[in-house]
Amino acid sequence: MGERLGVIGLGIMGKPMARNLLNAGFDVTVHSRGRGPVEELAAEGATPAVSPAEVARASDVLITMLPDTPDVEVVVDGPEGVLAGARPGLLVVDMSTISAAATRRMAETLAGRDVHMVDAPVTGGPAGAEAATLTIMVGGDPAVVKRVDPVFVCLGKVVHMGGNGAGQTAKACNQLAILVTAQGVAEALTLGRRCGLNPATLRQALLGGLAASRVLDLFGARMVAREFNAGIETRLYHKDLHTVLDMAREARQPVPAASLVMRHIDTLMNEQAGGKDLSILIELVENLSDL
Amino acid sequence: MGERLGVIGLGIMGKPMARNLLNAGFDVTVHSRGRGPVEELAAEGATPAVSPAEVARASDVLITMLPDTPDVEVVVDGPEGVLAGARPGLLVVDMSTISAAATRRMAETLAGRDVHMVDAPVTGGPAGAEAATLTIMVGGDPAVVKRVDPVFVCLGKVVHMGGNGAGQTAKACNQLAILVTAQGVAEALTLGRRCGLNPATLRQALLGGLAASRVLDLFGARMVAREFNAGIETRLYHKDLHTVLDMAREARQPVPAASLVMRHIDTLMNEQAGGKDLSILIELVENLSDL
Repeated sequence: MGERLGVIGLGIMGKPMARNLLNAGFDVTVHSRGRGPVEELAAEGATPAVSPAEVARASDVLITMLPDTPDVEVVVDGPEGVLAGARPGLLVVDMSTISAAATRRMAETLAGRDVHMVDAPVTGGPAGAEAATLTIMVGGDPAVVKRVDPVFVCLGKVVHMGGNGAGQTAKACNQLAILVTAQGVAEALTLGRRCGLNPATLRQALLGGLAASRVLDLFGARMVAREFNAGIETRLYHKDLHTVLDMAREARQPVPAASLVMRHIDTLMNEQAGGKDLSILIELVENLSDL
Repeated sequence: MGERLGVIGLGIMGKPMARNLLNAGFDVTVHSRGRGPVEELAAEGATPAVSPAEVARASDVLITMLPDTPDVEVVVDGPEGVLAGARPGLLVVDMSTISAAATRRMAETLAGRDVHMVDAPVTGGPAGAEAATLTIMVGGDPAVVKRVDPVFVCLGKVVHMGGNGAGQTAKACNQLAILVTAQGVAEALTLGRRCGLNPATLRQALLGGLAASRVLDLFGARMVAREFNAGIETRLYHKDLHTVLDMAREARQPVPAASLVMRHIDTLMNEQAGGKDLSILIELVENLSDL
């Protein structure tokens, strides 16, 4: 493979993605805050690096997969960051889910250093990362995006949304749809149970018709089993919903259901449930006080 | 086939269902408010009847597929209604989407006349009715439900939810999930468009991940195409949402997202949009005044 890859951020998503790139035959340099996943991937053939700058020096295409906007900003522009090691022509592919506005600012800063940037957040969750069946929502210059195609193909399916930031805009809309659907599923399962139905049977029935959704399938199963420790943590959805509401305010577009879910997720955060799976939303609905 | 069937209500759902029963070889007597569908099915081999009582006299198992609770009550217990023609042992299968409480009352009235009742609302829409891929949410005595199995198998897949009314309770939860999901899809597509994305591309991206749902697929396509004249009319969802909120109030279970959608659907009804497809919800979201 021609391009040397770098991956910064080996969490629940980044680690299986880096592994898929290794398995596809790419030369991959990795860095992460925790030593554990770096050593794990080094044992599988990756080159460990002690800083983002070191990853940048060893890479032609550098992927970041980090929790939040400030994490990406520090990794890119902080001390021993990507820019400290970047040569002209480096291509930064941010696959984190962060603010579209911050993405556009960062792309401009990088362009000033002759470094290209593409935003490429994903949906599909940890299972999609492992199976390389992610949907990748991409924003950036078409010619630059094309250069990343051989990498993306090892991770999932690309949908090119527009210029810099458009991938993050699409991802925010994706999170909005997931969260409002999860609220609906939580209300449906809770109301059914209150009215005497078996929630597992109800979920099964609803999966057979127009109410079917991946949220009902995945989060619904966890709500029914009361398994609140799997998957993506609620605090990450909380962060995403902040991004959604910021976008909506800037665009002067009310999103009332998303705002309602935000009040619920705020409550969960206040109750120290930010580390639980989003399926914990059903407990919140169950505990809503009477009308 | 042993059982002689009756079908009352040959609308957008009832007509294709009756046709599937005819095609399966059943002897089917039909009645509907409009003459058109009765004549259409008579030409295909059904026996036309001038009243619910006449259908009851000719049937062992009698299916009702009507718009609302009062329609079913009148057809069952009104002048020239089912009870006027019912012999002991008749089995009434109400596949309409109506109130669970009214269903339980009706089942009791019928039991007093030695007539059995099963509630069996469906999900899957007109396309599911035609393809016989409906999911049928059934409430009633297991022995009685078993007697209907050879009929149900020609229409779709059965999920037995519990005693009389449990099918309607499940259907209400189903409608809640559909409506809240539709609100989320409308907000996501609208926000994306306001932020410069192509809604068709956005829908395609979202269908690839955790935001995927049949609502996004079906109603999302109509929202993108701005095709508001297909499918089930909004006024029927309005009726269902009333049922949901009545149930929730009785069960003392708040369902805030469903209540929010009700305010939107109320507005659509006031704007004379009750005859439009539910996808019209996106116009309402677009026209929400600024935050």
